[in-house]
Amino acid sequence: MVTDVTFRKGHGTGNDFILLTDPDDVLSLTPRLVAALCDRHIGIGADGVLRAVRTDEAPGAEWFMDYRNADGSIAEMCGNGARVFARHLIDEGLTAPTSSIATRGGVRDVIVHDSGDVSVSMGPVTPLDHGITVTLGDDTYPAIGALVPNPHAVVFLPTLTGLGDISGATAGPDGAFPDGANIEFVEPLGPNHVVMRVWERGSGETLSCGTGACAVAWAHRLRDDIEEQPVRVDVPGGSLQVTVRSDVTLTGPVEFVARGTIDRDWWESHS
Amino acid sequence: MVTDVTFRKGHGTGNDFILLTDPDDVLSLTPRLVAALCDRHIGIGADGVLRAVRTDEAPGAEWFMDYRNADGSIAEMCGNGARVFARHLIDEGLTAPTSSIATRGGVRDVIVHDSGDVSVSMGPVTPLDHGITVTLGDDTYPAIGALVPNPHAVVFLPTLTGLGDISGATAGPDGAFPDGANIEFVEPLGPNHVVMRVWERGSGETLSCGTGACAVAWAHRLRDDIEEQPVRVDVPGGSLQVTVRSDVTLTGPVEFVARGTIDRDWWESHS
Repeated sequence: MVTDVTFRKGHGTGNDFILLTDPDDVLSLTPRLVAALCDRHIGIGADGVLRAVRTDEAPGAEWFMDYRNADGSIAEMCGNGARVFARHLIDEGLTAPTSSIATRGGVRDVIVHDSGDVSVSMGPVTPLDHGITVTLGDDTYPAIGALVPNPHAVVFLPTLTGLGDISGATAGPDGAFPDGANIEFVEPLGPNHVVMRVWERGSGETLSCGTGACAVAWAHRLRDDIEEQPVRVDVPGGSLQVTVRSDVTLTGPVEFVARGTIDRDWWESHS
Repeated sequence: MVTDVTFRKGHGTGNDFILLTDPDDVLSLTPRLVAALCDRHIGIGADGVLRAVRTDEAPGAEWFMDYRNADGSIAEMCGNGARVFARHLIDEGLTAPTSSIATRGGVRDVIVHDSGDVSVSMGPVTPLDHGITVTLGDDTYPAIGALVPNPHAVVFLPTLTGLGDISGATAGPDGAFPDGANIEFVEPLGPNHVVMRVWERGSGETLSCGTGACAVAWAHRLRDDIEEQPVRVDVPGGSLQVTVRSDVTLTGPVEFVARGTIDRDWWESHS
């Protein structure tokens, strides 16, 4: 590392990210370094790292979102991450309010609204065959399965009040989710308003899940044959808006907390 | 707030802190703001905030350590926090390597060694009456009780291997710890070497606990009548050295991760 690495920290409905602006692709992000950066005691702490790299390989997109999970692994796409990423580029004067970003999951359209809220196109929702179930403790519930494109199993309940620990929820039947599924428990609050809790495979219960909100809004509309848009999806970390057309659009707030430089000795010792 | 607030983040054996240098005591830290700063999703994230304020009220000490817990409450003293605080003052050229800092628990001597490790005087350990026990699940163990000055109950086990979840450990008998106790499970590894896990009241299992390490080293020496000093105390977040005389001295590493400025809008909306 020849210069200090600058960072910014922000979150979208409680999914928090470390942003690294690296236009010329000079930072070497090892899985070990990413895991240390995201470690909430020895590092800065975050759900993931979003590195912004200029690209000329993706039609229509000027920036590539190099998203890494907190454990250092590579992920294709993160809905709330893409929203935070787009606001960061706008704030820094690096792109236009309506633009496209390249992700490993493809090019995504983003709009930064005057309010500061950010919309991102999430691609289509692909229904899974019927017969999906979710098991939590001794109870098994019928569920709606969907790919966004990561797998989700959505359970509608009359109320979330009294729903205790959702750890260990699993989706079935055997073979339907060979890599596991993210599981959403949903209470409808109105024709265009639901509240959800989510259990993410690999992460446990989280404050928010962008693809989960999309799956939930899509399932809510499917189930109740609702025309009006968007659907408001309340998550523990805030509130999202989802519009379901051929592609699904996720909209919600972004908040930045701090910016600064990462200690050079720290960076080198954890690389 | 008239200017941007600068911060630094660092940790001592995994206890992590947000440092705010506020020589003229101009920052208004509400409990709500401290809790937001320490929130690991919407804020920067830390076990606590250490605000450095110049003082002329404490004999021999130039700086007051205004320590706040992650929930926004005020605490008297934090051993690992004091070590991080002292290194920060040295790094910033604000004090001498051997100095004293004022805390709500009294004036503490600190030494920043050439290695970067930091020693802090923790005051005396006060033994509690015999008959202390610790209950974990269905098992009850004899324990050694001590005040440092916060209450601790120390359980020696032949091995920590196989010790599972320590959540819910409680110390007795009834009335011995009216405000609860921090509970340490300890395996002796040699005459001057132990390994411990700690359950902190209000925080759960943590990576390190400075006063806990002091209580453990003191109890280890008491139990085995050991003369040699210091005692090495391994915690999940690293390794500490404890010297037990009339006062106990805690020594260990400090690491800084990043420095920067806190977003002004964020600060104002969470104040």
